[in-house]
Amino acid sequence: MAGSTFGKLFRVTTWGESHGTAVGATIDGCPPGLELAPDDIQHDLDRRRPGTGGPAASPRKEPDRVEILSGIFEGRTTGTPISLAIFNKDAHSKSYDHLKDIFRPGHGDITYLKKYGIRDHRGGGRASARETAARVAAGAIARKLLAEAGIDVIAYTVALGGLATERRDLTEIKNNPLRCPDSDTAAKMAERIDQVRKEGDTLGGIVEIMASGCPAGLGEPVFDKLDGELARALMSIGAVKGVEIGAGFAAAAMKGSENNDSISADGFKSNNAGGILAGISSSQDIISRVAVKPIPSIAKEQDTIDLDGKPAKIKIGGRHDISAIPRIIPVCEAMVALTLADHMLRQRTVR
Amino acid sequence: MAGSTFGKLFRVTTWGESHGTAVGATIDGCPPGLELAPDDIQHDLDRRRPGTGGPAASPRKEPDRVEILSGIFEGRTTGTPISLAIFNKDAHSKSYDHLKDIFRPGHGDITYLKKYGIRDHRGGGRASARETAARVAAGAIARKLLAEAGIDVIAYTVALGGLATERRDLTEIKNNPLRCPDSDTAAKMAERIDQVRKEGDTLGGIVEIMASGCPAGLGEPVFDKLDGELARALMSIGAVKGVEIGAGFAAAAMKGSENNDSISADGFKSNNAGGILAGISSSQDIISRVAVKPIPSIAKEQDTIDLDGKPAKIKIGGRHDISAIPRIIPVCEAMVALTLADHMLRQRTVR
Amino acid sequence: MAGSTFGKLFRVTTWGESHGTAVGATIDGCPPGLELAPDDIQHDLDRRRPGTGGPAASPRKEPDRVEILSGIFEGRTTGTPISLAIFNKDAHSKSYDHLKDIFRPGHGDITYLKKYGIRDHRGGGRASARETAARVAAGAIARKLLAEAGIDVIAYTVALGGLATERRDLTEIKNNPLRCPDSDTAAKMAERIDQVRKEGDTLGGIVEIMASGCPAGLGEPVFDKLDGELARALMSIGAVKGVEIGAGFAAAAMKGSENNDSISADGFKSNNAGGILAGISSSQDIISRVAVKPIPSIAKEQDTIDLDGKPAKIKIGGRHDISAIPRIIPVCEAMVALTLADHMLRQRTVR
Amino acid sequence: MAGSTFGKLFRVTTWGESHGTAVGATIDGCPPGLELAPDDIQHDLDRRRPGTGGPAASPRKEPDRVEILSGIFEGRTTGTPISLAIFNKDAHSKSYDHLKDIFRPGHGDITYLKKYGIRDHRGGGRASARETAARVAAGAIARKLLAEAGIDVIAYTVALGGLATERRDLTEIKNNPLRCPDSDTAAKMAERIDQVRKEGDTLGGIVEIMASGCPAGLGEPVFDKLDGELARALMSIGAVKGVEIGAGFAAAAMKGSENNDSISADGFKSNNAGGILAGISSSQDIISRVAVKPIPSIAKEQDTIDLDGKPAKIKIGGRHDISAIPRIIPVCEAMVALTLADHMLRQRTVR
Repeated sequence: MAGSTFGKLFRVTTWGESHGTAVGATIDGCPPGLELAPDDIQHDLDRRRPGTGGPAASPRKEPDRVEILSGIFEGRTTGTPISLAIFNKDAHSKSYDHLKDIFRPGHGDITYLKKYGIRDHRGGGRASARETAARVAAGAIARKLLAEAGIDVIAYTVALGGLATERRDLTEIKNNPLRCPDSDTAAKMAERIDQVRKEGDTLGGIVEIMASGCPAGLGEPVFDKLDGELARALMSIGAVKGVEIGAGFAAAAMKGSENNDSISADGFKSNNAGGILAGISSSQDIISRVAVKPIPSIAKEQDTIDLDGKPAKIKIGGRHDISAIPRIIPVCEAMVALTLADHMLRQRTVR
Repeated sequence: MAGSTFGKLFRVTTWGESHGTAVGATIDGCPPGLELAPDDIQHDLDRRRPGTGGPAASPRKEPDRVEILSGIFEGRTTGTPISLAIFNKDAHSKSYDHLKDIFRPGHGDITYLKKYGIRDHRGGGRASARETAARVAAGAIARKLLAEAGIDVIAYTVALGGLATERRDLTEIKNNPLRCPDSDTAAKMAERIDQVRKEGDTLGGIVEIMASGCPAGLGEPVFDKLDGELARALMSIGAVKGVEIGAGFAAAAMKGSENNDSISADGFKSNNAGGILAGISSSQDIISRVAVKPIPSIAKEQDTIDLDGKPAKIKIGGRHDISAIPRIIPVCEAMVALTLADHMLRQRTVR
Repeated sequence: MAGSTFGKLFRVTTWGESHGTAVGATIDGCPPGLELAPDDIQHDLDRRRPGTGGPAASPRKEPDRVEILSGIFEGRTTGTPISLAIFNKDAHSKSYDHLKDIFRPGHGDITYLKKYGIRDHRGGGRASARETAARVAAGAIARKLLAEAGIDVIAYTVALGGLATERRDLTEIKNNPLRCPDSDTAAKMAERIDQVRKEGDTLGGIVEIMASGCPAGLGEPVFDKLDGELARALMSIGAVKGVEIGAGFAAAAMKGSENNDSISADGFKSNNAGGILAGISSSQDIISRVAVKPIPSIAKEQDTIDLDGKPAKIKIGGRHDISAIPRIIPVCEAMVALTLADHMLRQRTVR
Repeated sequence: MAGSTFGKLFRVTTWGESHGTAVGATIDGCPPGLELAPDDIQHDLDRRRPGTGGPAASPRKEPDRVEILSGIFEGRTTGTPISLAIFNKDAHSKSYDHLKDIFRPGHGDITYLKKYGIRDHRGGGRASARETAARVAAGAIARKLLAEAGIDVIAYTVALGGLATERRDLTEIKNNPLRCPDSDTAAKMAERIDQVRKEGDTLGGIVEIMASGCPAGLGEPVFDKLDGELARALMSIGAVKGVEIGAGFAAAAMKGSENNDSISADGFKSNNAGGILAGISSSQDIISRVAVKPIPSIAKEQDTIDLDGKPAKIKIGGRHDISAIPRIIPVCEAMVALTLADHMLRQRTVR
């Protein structure tokens, strides 16, 4: 069954494979009158592009130029579907031929084949992280819509390869390629990446996403609560294995008196709730964090099986990142922005 | 906008408030021919019922008898909507009158009012954990459907009040009221609860949910991946602040060579993936964990404000649990079962 | 797959069988703050009730008392799901036992069995017109919401048994039980009914539905156009075999110069469009018409087959109406009201 | 709110404007393993293309070449979204400049502006019949899927300009450009078109669509009945003002004994029901008919108003068809095919 659509009112459908003709997205439900030019989208795409991301980056060269095929008239959205396409330029399909008959551990090769009975083995096909370029493009439109309402979404690295950031100085984020809010930790992370690259191995980490400026009232009880929707949005990113809101897993070890955010005439005194109470935004900052697993494509030899179920060895060279961080950061921002844009429109149907 | 429906093909809509006439659920999309009697549902409801749950329990006495109002003919489902109702019997609405003009910290009082401009203050209204009785009732039908397909869903306590279980012996679960897979840890948890109850405080914990017997192929890339859907399902439970799949947050600190589950002719050699690869079930056990926050209704004095924004003090007595564990356990099972039932039907549309 | 939900933002899920415990509806998405009491709903239910409808009526006696089980607090909607139930009182299930092994021509007996492999033969089960009581109850809430916005929905009989009304004097509607806008034609229709009743036969007709006071802008191109949504809403009523908007089928024989509604400074000069242009309301009256087939339960002998496929004869006595008109009238009004309420909320997401 | 998606399991989202860069569709939910090449789609597109359609045709020259951008691997669908694009080649945007400040009677100019506050005036923008090229392209995939299941969808002209076909000889359809199942009537229709073209006027008509080979069981009571879904699908085509199933409006004047299709051991003896009973297909041919209004762009002078509400005169020359027939025929086929494909997948979730 169809699973490539996100959102109920600000609806995004993505399409495209890693080594097909193009990837793209159709956004249906964007309100009319929003100023929109390709550059508004390109800026976010550039942050996700292969070859960026400093020490952890892959050398695949994709210009990732977005084209807007519909939905804009005289520089503004018209309320009709916006179609975006990013044509693939540097797809080396043949370099995947040796993987045609073998399953890469940690990848969806085996589950895709079991589900569909057919599989595009070229670079992971639809399961490739390349699909997230379409999310980032659509997310850029959501971010523009949110910006008009005073809402800003920003993500940053709070852990990488087991190294946790010691400070959270958001002004530091732009000062290092890993987008860590502590440049000292960022330097250690970079060292760690270099070391692991030499081992032929990869690293995971934790990204935190903060949405500021959100009005109270976003989120629809009981199944479409804002935290539930954020969890789905973020967990739908390939490398993510965990999501938490506010104090998250730490709350499980607190007492009620520690975890409750008491209230004063000036507002909440703390934010363990992460800006969401009973599934509805409270107007505090909305804080979520995701656990990013290490990239499964490693240069070390691994045990696996082939299509016939026979044991095989695999070593994946190719043009791969060491960590999904930092390129996953704009993807996290996009997913949070798409969720908030959808709920901003949904809230209009309540009042 | 409507947010009380869960699932796309096995669709559940819940309704009802804590101190209204009843709570209930309508299940639309249940396949015809499934044997179903009220007792099939009652068994799960009894595990969630107020007054159960041993040391952590609240004294509200609700028989929670479910009535099936439609969708069954001669003991079997007909394929038409199944309407379930649980009438409220022990609702002491008046005992909430003193909370009418004040916001309880950690509860949705303030966000409900901001969202809707109106709020049913009696016991949390729609935001009450009582709503989950309807989920458990619907979930029992999903569990029956899954059982026919050989799928079993079981949840248990792996941490409470900061005490983590040392063993995972699933045969132990039924031997202690906290449903902990280690009776020694369970005893320490019970002591902890007693102590915290005297302090007028409350506790959180971590619940693990295991679904065994799942076929490969469940989950719809890219936005309706099985892990994303589970995350939403579980995070939509009021007390849950975090969700992880398989190794979860621990994966963020692993190397790729450690985290990847290598494959032999006998199957996967480990299960860090938690039974899901690229959003699709692999036929391994599906493992998820949720962080449960401490119950926000505490007997200690807290700072808050009233409807006019003026500072106030609040102390919540009443009939409250010390921890959402273990009563949240059948709710977690229900949400996982509803997710899997929905995806079992969705997978039929693929093949 | 689930098919018992109508609407995207004002969402109604109906449930219940003709001879089960009850029929009912859950409305999710109704905005908060709407005054609502059972009497608001009862009035419309009374117009649809068995035993009303004058000359064409069935003698089944059902009080059809609606109960509101959730979603209301202190006389107003809260924004949470509204659960409605109508318990069945006069269900003579045994009187259908002789139909257990035979298919009634013109009914869904055969298709329900083929679809589901199981069938509730008592009075048509879910396929019974009794299901429409739940629609009318939900529709009454939609009508109240629309009334607050100045929108009124009214339906009336424009043909019955081949007799077409000659005038459209809406003040006449309440003066005759067939709700015909021409009392002279109404009298002839009543005569026709008496005559056909003696023959053991039944009659069909045409109902027109007018929605006045609608703002411009309702309807979502291109697949959720207002006329398409109305067509689905009305065609989903059991007896309806055709739907037309404005000039409808007559437009097929007109020239463009005749059919186009030219525009003056005072507005449109005619209304062949039926108040909808390119799927969006224009602020003119929204006019639709439905073809209602004759009731298939006739006292005359008919050819049919039994469950084994063997030829059989059938004669249906029982407590049946001669025509679905006029009891179908509040159902038509309900379906138009539900459609408009949904689109009123949808339009809020555009502006 | 988003309205450009059709179907629940076989989901089609169309995008694009008449004079934008391209029109296209994304199909999500197409089962894997279906052989598909551009030529499969091109054949249907060619029948809808401007410049075809014989006597009634417009001279706009569009090659309408479809490109498949995703979802196909080695000539087969993979189960992932199929993205289709048709780039516009012969868009004369400037020829619409004189219509920028005026509303064309019978068109959506006025309602689009009222709804969105902004309007792409070039050739109707999103409201243009050009959007239906995307429907036809997506429909061709549905038709291929249906063909594998033995289901065939064919549409033909049964009335044009008030001239009704006297015979229904389906072998005649390919023998005349109007696709009329009676070549004698077709000749008269062509004469009629010539005459009306000279008057600067336009014509409407009636198209019948027959789906043969459908299994019993398609359609989901009570709101997603097959006839309701077909009505919505067909009414969503711009020029359609009425839809009927089987006997349709004629049934309103029949007695029950005339309208009921009695049943023999060999099956139904007639097909007034149009192949659908209680919203579920019976395995008889599924028959629907649509009323097509005359094209509103006429060369005769009409009264209208400008953006300021001041009276104006309008005469539309340009490259317009005299009748939407026959180019609307593949669009009708596409919409019926999309509906059936969706319900074929939905039925899999029941059994």
